Amino acid sequence: MIHPTALVSSSARIDEGVEIGPYSIIHEAVWIKKNTKVGAYCELGLPTPLANQSQLAIGERSVIRSHSVIYAGSRIGAGLQTGHHVCIRENSDIAEGVQLGSRTDVQGDCSIGAYTKLHADVHVGKQSKIGSFVWLFPDVLLTNDPMPPSETLIGSVIEDYCVVASKVLVFPGVTIGNNSVIGAGSVVKADIPEWKLATGNPAKPSCDVRILRMPANPKEKAYPWRNRFHRGYPQEIVQAWIEQAQTMGRSK
Amino acid sequence: MIHPTALVSSSARIDEGVEIGPYSIIHEAVWIKKNTKVGAYCELGLPTPLANQSQLAIGERSVIRSHSVIYAGSRIGAGLQTGHHVCIRENSDIAEGVQLGSRTDVQGDCSIGAYTKLHADVHVGKQSKIGSFVWLFPDVLLTNDPMPPSETLIGSVIEDYCVVASKVLVFPGVTIGNNSVIGAGSVVKADIPEWKLATGNPAKPSCDVRILRMPANPKEKAYPWRNRFHRGYPQEIVQAWIEQAQTMGRSK
Amino acid sequence: MIHPTALVSSSARIDEGVEIGPYSIIHEAVWIKKNTKVGAYCELGLPTPLANQSQLAIGERSVIRSHSVIYAGSRIGAGLQTGHHVCIRENSDIAEGVQLGSRTDVQGDCSIGAYTKLHADVHVGKQSKIGSFVWLFPDVLLTNDPMPPSETLIGSVIEDYCVVASKVLVFPGVTIGNNSVIGAGSVVKADIPEWKLATGNPAKPSCDVRILRMPANPKEKAYPWRNRFHRGYPQEIVQAWIEQAQTMGRSK
Repeated sequence: MIHPTALVSSSARIDEGVEIGPYSIIHEAVWIKKNTKVGAYCELGLPTPLANQSQLAIGERSVIRSHSVIYAGSRIGAGLQTGHHVCIRENSDIAEGVQLGSRTDVQGDCSIGAYTKLHADVHVGKQSKIGSFVWLFPDVLLTNDPMPPSETLIGSVIEDYCVVASKVLVFPGVTIGNNSVIGAGSVVKADIPEWKLATGNPAKPSCDVRILRMPANPKEKAYPWRNRFHRGYPQEIVQAWIEQAQTMGRSK
Repeated sequence: MIHPTALVSSSARIDEGVEIGPYSIIHEAVWIKKNTKVGAYCELGLPTPLANQSQLAIGERSVIRSHSVIYAGSRIGAGLQTGHHVCIRENSDIAEGVQLGSRTDVQGDCSIGAYTKLHADVHVGKQSKIGSFVWLFPDVLLTNDPMPPSETLIGSVIEDYCVVASKVLVFPGVTIGNNSVIGAGSVVKADIPEWKLATGNPAKPSCDVRILRMPANPKEKAYPWRNRFHRGYPQEIVQAWIEQAQTMGRSK
Repeated sequence: MIHPTALVSSSARIDEGVEIGPYSIIHEAVWIKKNTKVGAYCELGLPTPLANQSQLAIGERSVIRSHSVIYAGSRIGAGLQTGHHVCIRENSDIAEGVQLGSRTDVQGDCSIGAYTKLHADVHVGKQSKIGSFVWLFPDVLLTNDPMPPSETLIGSVIEDYCVVASKVLVFPGVTIGNNSVIGAGSVVKADIPEWKLATGNPAKPSCDVRILRMPANPKEKAYPWRNRFHRGYPQEIVQAWIEQAQTMGRSK
């Protein structure tokens, strides 16, 4: 189902079951894998001299919503979900199951691990490294220039299972350790160790996140969130989380 | 005047005097009421399994600017004005005379009262409740998840006549009382009573807004703003505001 | 090279070497000068009753990326570069060599000096005045209303060679003096003198920026940045910067 108004290069590779919406543009050297749906007014595979390679591969079962732009030279795993007006620049490695909210911008030379979810209006500066199963909430900004303007960008690093709440600003080169939670509106100027809650400007690590409880049920531990929040993750991953939690429970 | 390149479902109901711009897409179950103007590259009535009903109704005399996206399942009153690249998700109740600035995102299950004006880049999280005659300035963010990620979202509540200045972050479930004014850049972590000025991180209520004066004319009271700012409101509403102010003046 | 799907008014003036991408719309009274490239889904010259004049002139060798909107009544110099989903309102004076990142919004009645670079998501409120060779990083917001909502907007002023880092909020009517540097996440509530580093909420001027050194090479002075960062500027300008630096070096 390629809409008759879509402009698809004859060099593009469109696998079976792909849908391309009205007025979308698919450049050459794009490979859209099977059962992926592209909305209206999307432009995929925009060429740029900054791309290390000309190909753009988009994994199967992805959903790319309207008015989104993806440049040449990125590798995107299966099951990408984007909102509207999203922008992904060149040379990014995006693993399977990633979600990018509306107007989120991945600015190039980035890596995003599996099943990581970026909400709306997240700005991922060039050379950022985001792990797997990470959550970045609306308006999070990952910067990269320690003395602007400069030629040597240093992306920040967000490790696996981190939760970064809304409107957080992360300074260049900062690492947020795995499983940490950054409170909304914080400014992260220095590294945060793993498993910490950090809040404020500058963000300071306070307690271990594993002592936090759910507001609606003080008996339920809030973190690691994978012990209580499973919606949207593949069943085998959820099963592994459950087994790991049971093992840790027994070992205590 | 439906542009010949617009793709309009034969099941859509398009009233008289409606204009639809080039390349726009109108899905089935959309009802656009009379004299509404839709710009270019808009997509209206995008279906989603999250919509409680399939219809999208857009009131008369609305103006929807280019590159905007409105999902199925929302009810929008007369005289909506949007900027460009706006996004409105499903199940929202938007009263008459509402204005949504460019790139503003109403994320679903929200209500927005009459003549409320959201500037550019406002992010309205799911389940937010915004009253009537409210002003939200650029980059205001209403959050909804008290322990992210979680299944139980708690939208914030912004009551009538509130003014929330630029880049304010509102925490989940917070209520800002009617006629209050939140200073630019504040972080609102707890409820704010009515008629208060609140600023800072966390935002703390300080004086009653009715003691504030206009910088250019210290004899003129700044709030309630409806006693001095009338541009864009219907004449009968302005007349009621004037009479109310006179009554209150006499009763003092 | 005007794409056959582009809708170009017969009253528009399109100089030689101009490229217009698929599905773009060029209104009447638009003058696109030679060798400019307009991407897909752009709308240029959108009429508005707020425009002081109906013409929109876009200088030669400009690049306007997809999904951007430029209103009637602005004057844009040679070599404009925009990202995607950019919005420029009416009555703005944009000098040569300006760069506007994706989703950046110039809201009208603004002036932007030569070779000034705005990154992504910068919001330039009405009546802002931005000098030449300025850098505004992602999510910077220039406000203009001292007592919102009001009729008398007072734009802020950013003087030549300033650097305003990410997520900075600038209050209405504030002037940031030439060559100053504002740290990321700051809130600028009052004027900042020239040549100062200012950080915090409220931003307070601390040291002279000329004592700052590059993190990677403590022998290299960080500011004025024009002594060390030349990428993207015309050769004659860079030459003048080098000669000026040598003269100042000798005069010490």
